[in-house]
Amino acid sequence: MYDLYIANKNYSSWSLRPWVLLKTLNIPFTEHLHYFSTPIGENVQFKAFSPSSLVPALHDQGLTIWDSLAIAEYVYEADPRVWPANREARAFARSAAAEMHSGFSVLRNICTMTCGLRVKLHTISPALQRNIDRLDALFSEGLSRFGGPFLAGDTFTAVDAFYCPVAFRVQTYSLTLNPPAQAYIERLLSLPAMQDWYAAALAETVREPEHEAEVTEAGVIEADYRAV
Amino acid sequence: MYDLYIANKNYSSWSLRPWVLLKTLNIPFTEHLHYFSTPIGENVQFKAFSPSSLVPALHDQGLTIWDSLAIAEYVYEADPRVWPANREARAFARSAAAEMHSGFSVLRNICTMTCGLRVKLHTISPALQRNIDRLDALFSEGLSRFGGPFLAGDTFTAVDAFYCPVAFRVQTYSLTLNPPAQAYIERLLSLPAMQDWYAAALAETVREPEHEAEVTEAGVIEADYRAV
Repeated sequence: MYDLYIANKNYSSWSLRPWVLLKTLNIPFTEHLHYFSTPIGENVQFKAFSPSSLVPALHDQGLTIWDSLAIAEYVYEADPRVWPANREARAFARSAAAEMHSGFSVLRNICTMTCGLRVKLHTISPALQRNIDRLDALFSEGLSRFGGPFLAGDTFTAVDAFYCPVAFRVQTYSLTLNPPAQAYIERLLSLPAMQDWYAAALAETVREPEHEAEVTEAGVIEADYRAV
Repeated sequence: MYDLYIANKNYSSWSLRPWVLLKTLNIPFTEHLHYFSTPIGENVQFKAFSPSSLVPALHDQGLTIWDSLAIAEYVYEADPRVWPANREARAFARSAAAEMHSGFSVLRNICTMTCGLRVKLHTISPALQRNIDRLDALFSEGLSRFGGPFLAGDTFTAVDAFYCPVAFRVQTYSLTLNPPAQAYIERLLSLPAMQDWYAAALAETVREPEHEAEVTEAGVIEADYRAV
């Protein structure tokens, strides 16, 4: 059985990806949750299970796979449901997942994932708006080309898992997408695995100061649904 | 035959990855080079061949694959030499390539790729030093676990392609690595494909102001080998 190492469910967008993928595909794994320490740039305590000191990391049969996209490809070798069966949809899905992996830096830095909060951004910069416009275009393209309801066809695959953190960001920061893109975000939020993650995130009482500060730098907190 | 869209060889680290991969594996392709425009955040002219407006993009049989890591996986489906044949080495290679894809942000932002320059950095911050230490650890681990001379074994694979831009950065900014890591960097720099790329980068006379400014912000230019 896989062992998946993750960090705080409220904050860790990278952890969410393989977690929601495995859960939604009903692939069994043991979850190991370790909280971020401060400063978050030096999570040396993660070194015990991840050579990069970053989460997520997957352990399987003596191997360590220490990146969310590498985990997707590793699991795909054992389970073809990870990517779309159709070659064209698979090329699209991998492009979109890898684009999220290296890109959308303004969205990721300004609208940091913090599931339990609702935040009014001070401003939507032109660079952030370009990221939002790109989400609109990407979601519209995928949904129309492959027929939905998921981004690359009729089944949930790794590309959807890679945009699950975006769904929480859209919810937290009330980002405005076009109607098909918005409907797709709501579809992701309503997945059982997403609801489980969200409930666990709300139940966390640990607060990591750097993540908290990023939010108040970006906007004003209008609601906090987290346990105290 | 593949069509590969790339940007300036002096600057575009992302373009270098699939280019050096295809060249080194002797996989034929047609190169389409388009220069960055300014501001570089809005390269709308790239939209004609890449839906994200980012390079690189690969066109094949009516499909567009618009990310370097997705390109590697796409080409792998047709040519197994892209990743190591050994399962353990492949898991390592994919983890390391994906770590570079999403990480090493300080190294990527401070030591931007600019092949033709030699630069003395104003300072090596603790965050940059952590990235350099991570390169040391990663290279040492791969070379010792899989026996070299490449990062995941005896053949050049996509993980080496993903660290080729790092080789130019180490050269430009005189970064100090441990001896096995330094030897690996020199091995990458001496590859015929890397020498071809380097010669073409030096021959470019176009200067993109934002890329040029990033360099002078980070350090002092000690040599400029580029054509004028």
